[in-house]
Amino acid sequence: MKLLKDKIRNSAKITENRIIQVDSFLNHQLDITLFNEIGKEFKRRFSSKEITKIVTIETSGIAIASITSQYFNNVPVVFAKKHAGLNMNPNVYESKVYSYTKDQEYTIKISKEFISPNDKILIIDDFLASGSALLGLVSLVSQSSAEISGVGIVIEKSFQGGRKLVEEKGLQVESLAIIDSLKDGQVFFK
Amino acid sequence: MKLLKDKIRNSAKITENRIIQVDSFLNHQLDITLFNEIGKEFKRRFSSKEITKIVTIETSGIAIASITSQYFNNVPVVFAKKHAGLNMNPNVYESKVYSYTKDQEYTIKISKEFISPNDKILIIDDFLASGSALLGLVSLVSQSSAEISGVGIVIEKSFQGGRKLVEEKGLQVESLAIIDSLKDGQVFFK
Repeated sequence: MKLLKDKIRNSAKITENRIIQVDSFLNHQLDITLFNEIGKEFKRRFSSKEITKIVTIETSGIAIASITSQYFNNVPVVFAKKHAGLNMNPNVYESKVYSYTKDQEYTIKISKEFISPNDKILIIDDFLASGSALLGLVSLVSQSSAEISGVGIVIEKSFQGGRKLVEEKGLQVESLAIIDSLKDGQVFFK
Repeated sequence: MKLLKDKIRNSAKITENRIIQVDSFLNHQLDITLFNEIGKEFKRRFSSKEITKIVTIETSGIAIASITSQYFNNVPVVFAKKHAGLNMNPNVYESKVYSYTKDQEYTIKISKEFISPNDKILIIDDFLASGSALLGLVSLVSQSSAEISGVGIVIEKSFQGGRKLVEEKGLQVESLAIIDSLKDGQVFFK
């Protein structure tokens, strides 16, 4: 997706040839025009699939999933919680995820009432790197016996190997920008 | 806003005559059709104001702010972070907020680079109760010297007194549903 790659080339900050920061348009400040183009592109890539619900994970997946829903007949969005409040219904699906950027393991949760076995789920997330968060989401949805119609990712860092772990589960993974490597502050796309 | 009040009447769960859970459409599962109506209504209420940016707070404000942005020419959305990762730029505005639902104090942060003194800010949040989170957001924006054009709230619990604290700062506060009291599992609107 050219618009997205241009945005990454022009605005992302790269550190340690490994970390890419996209705070100016994806993770802290949100470029809603870009998100609409992302939503359209996900629709194009999953146009043959039936989707009844979009599942994502807080925080950065939420806005992308919500805008994307508008291109899938406004299907409900459900986000997995990392930081459940005291009010949260205890009847949940749970999964463990390891975060490299925060260097800690945490538990993600979705209330059982919001995914039914009849749902056809599109999973959306901002990044695919090691695949830990994505496998956690796949596990949550699988616990519900709902069908996963596909996985849509905004930015994939292919050199961290996550895609293989997700594809081994037989899932269609569509990433809108695939980064092969980061070198000397530059981004090299696949 | 009738659609919202109907949704609250039909789907909210009330506990202890104090807590209202709207997980099925606002805080965990997201009703994107409703969010579009909310966005339109915020535009109607702030139609005379110039808005260059929307500021909100993770987690539940993000989707509402993002959909609302579409009714304000897709202005950028910036969300204050409660759980900053190791990657976050240390050059931030900070403020302390006390959460009643989690019973803890936490620090919210916004990178200085994403709010400029020339910005005209619409602050959006899901709830106004004691006003703690909202005053935190107002403080962050004020530190930047940007102008606050208004404050848009989806659900206000008027019996917790937050509105007064925000209006004392001279701000226009628009809440789309104002709850006067919660009694015997029922919601009474203003």
